[in-house]
Amino acid sequence: MNISFMQKLSDNWKDSLLCIGLDPDPSKMPPFIHTKGGTIYAFCKEIIDATADLVCAYKPQIAYFSANHAEDQLEQIIIYIHENYPHIPVILDAKRGDIGSTAEQYAIEAFERYKADAVTLNPYMGFDAILPFTSYTDKGVFILCRTSNSGGDEIQNLQVEGRPLYLKIAELASYWNTNKNIGLVAGATYPNELAGIRHIVDDMPILVPGIGIQGGDIGLTVKAGLLPDISGLLLNSSRAILYAGNDEDFASAARIQAQKTCEEITKAILNFKI
Amino acid sequence: MNISFMQKLSDNWKDSLLCIGLDPDPSKMPPFIHTKGGTIYAFCKEIIDATADLVCAYKPQIAYFSANHAEDQLEQIIIYIHENYPHIPVILDAKRGDIGSTAEQYAIEAFERYKADAVTLNPYMGFDAILPFTSYTDKGVFILCRTSNSGGDEIQNLQVEGRPLYLKIAELASYWNTNKNIGLVAGATYPNELAGIRHIVDDMPILVPGIGIQGGDIGLTVKAGLLPDISGLLLNSSRAILYAGNDEDFASAARIQAQKTCEEITKAILNFKI
Repeated sequence: MNISFMQKLSDNWKDSLLCIGLDPDPSKMPPFIHTKGGTIYAFCKEIIDATADLVCAYKPQIAYFSANHAEDQLEQIIIYIHENYPHIPVILDAKRGDIGSTAEQYAIEAFERYKADAVTLNPYMGFDAILPFTSYTDKGVFILCRTSNSGGDEIQNLQVEGRPLYLKIAELASYWNTNKNIGLVAGATYPNELAGIRHIVDDMPILVPGIGIQGGDIGLTVKAGLLPDISGLLLNSSRAILYAGNDEDFASAARIQAQKTCEEITKAILNFKI
Repeated sequence: MNISFMQKLSDNWKDSLLCIGLDPDPSKMPPFIHTKGGTIYAFCKEIIDATADLVCAYKPQIAYFSANHAEDQLEQIIIYIHENYPHIPVILDAKRGDIGSTAEQYAIEAFERYKADAVTLNPYMGFDAILPFTSYTDKGVFILCRTSNSGGDEIQNLQVEGRPLYLKIAELASYWNTNKNIGLVAGATYPNELAGIRHIVDDMPILVPGIGIQGGDIGLTVKAGLLPDISGLLLNSSRAILYAGNDEDFASAARIQAQKTCEEITKAILNFKI
């Protein structure tokens, strides 16, 4: 029997809240990698092998693969994770959003072609655009709520029925969550807003980008969003880990950076418990 | 010199407001096509050759290609249009939306890899997610405003500062439009709302899905959104034209359906002028 995304996540949270984002940018990868075939696959494989014992999930960002003509390498990386680390779920960061018949095609892309365990989605088109994904009951979806970029303010902080739009999205997501496989995306760069979201969505998983290069504070994020049983958050770092080194030891450098991040998370959890 | 997207569109509007959406679904394509290699490419090529004199633009929907492992065929179709019908712009319907560094990768995907003339985008993440696309000044972007699906109501019709969110998006899009290469997406299924959008955005191009299978009324749409010089709208039909026939004459059937649609548009324009 396949283990569902939510079950995998729940099991892994006992050991780690760290999610590593796979954003393979050839211009930032160590130069010697470029000389091999399947560059992006080779880079991601080394990062994965160096960090697999430290993470609760991996999150490949599809834009980096699409821009580089590397869909086949994305397929291979996900197969590699499933075969070698079957307990680690893969969240395809694609932020898809379209009407029903097209959303069905995007769901096939994410779950059948790429065999991702979960996918990120955009809420602007309403539940029509979400349902074809949540219908895969053993898969997960993460709906954008309060994104980590400063420009997210322009739309997400508009006042709607007496509170910001992102809180209305959190309410709608709770309402849409009949299959119990919806989570949200809320950036570490806005911990107060994350706390407001957690208040609304109870024990829903929250994927939190922004703790690496973007400068989100791990302590404040954990305080704002962690559940009492030390679960509920996927703290995502991408570039800070992937590009910690730029020579032959890049994978070791990535591991060291991932360990540092885990230590910061552990410290934040200890403070949370007090 | 390359002709910009907006110039191509403006030139073509003298002859047609029809945009044909390329949503190639292998389960709906004529059975004999399936026996050939490059099925999706073959199907789209026949549709294009049969309709190229009737359209102002083509709009391939990337989800159908991604679900079917057919990125290479999408590349080939766009090259085919550019080489054989260089005056017809290609709008990649991808509804992308992500933070700056990732949006840059998506812009590379749309404009450099696929060589599309324009792309559809989602506004939820704000101008950060739009700017990497509008920076390609000879290209176009269409931002989702009021989508054609009924579920679009849930978010887009929320009241914000005294009017629905989709009108706020229209205002923001006008404000973001410093390079004069932004258009909007507004469904034919809501002509009254289209009229409200046109009132705000002056002469901005509006891509209007929903006039085919989805049942949007062409007369009401033209009345609501057309500019006095008979321009400003791309009336999109996809499935009603693509799957008008299902045997060896499918391309002729598509042409006949496209001609019928053009006749309805002409009739609506005559009524508009009165």
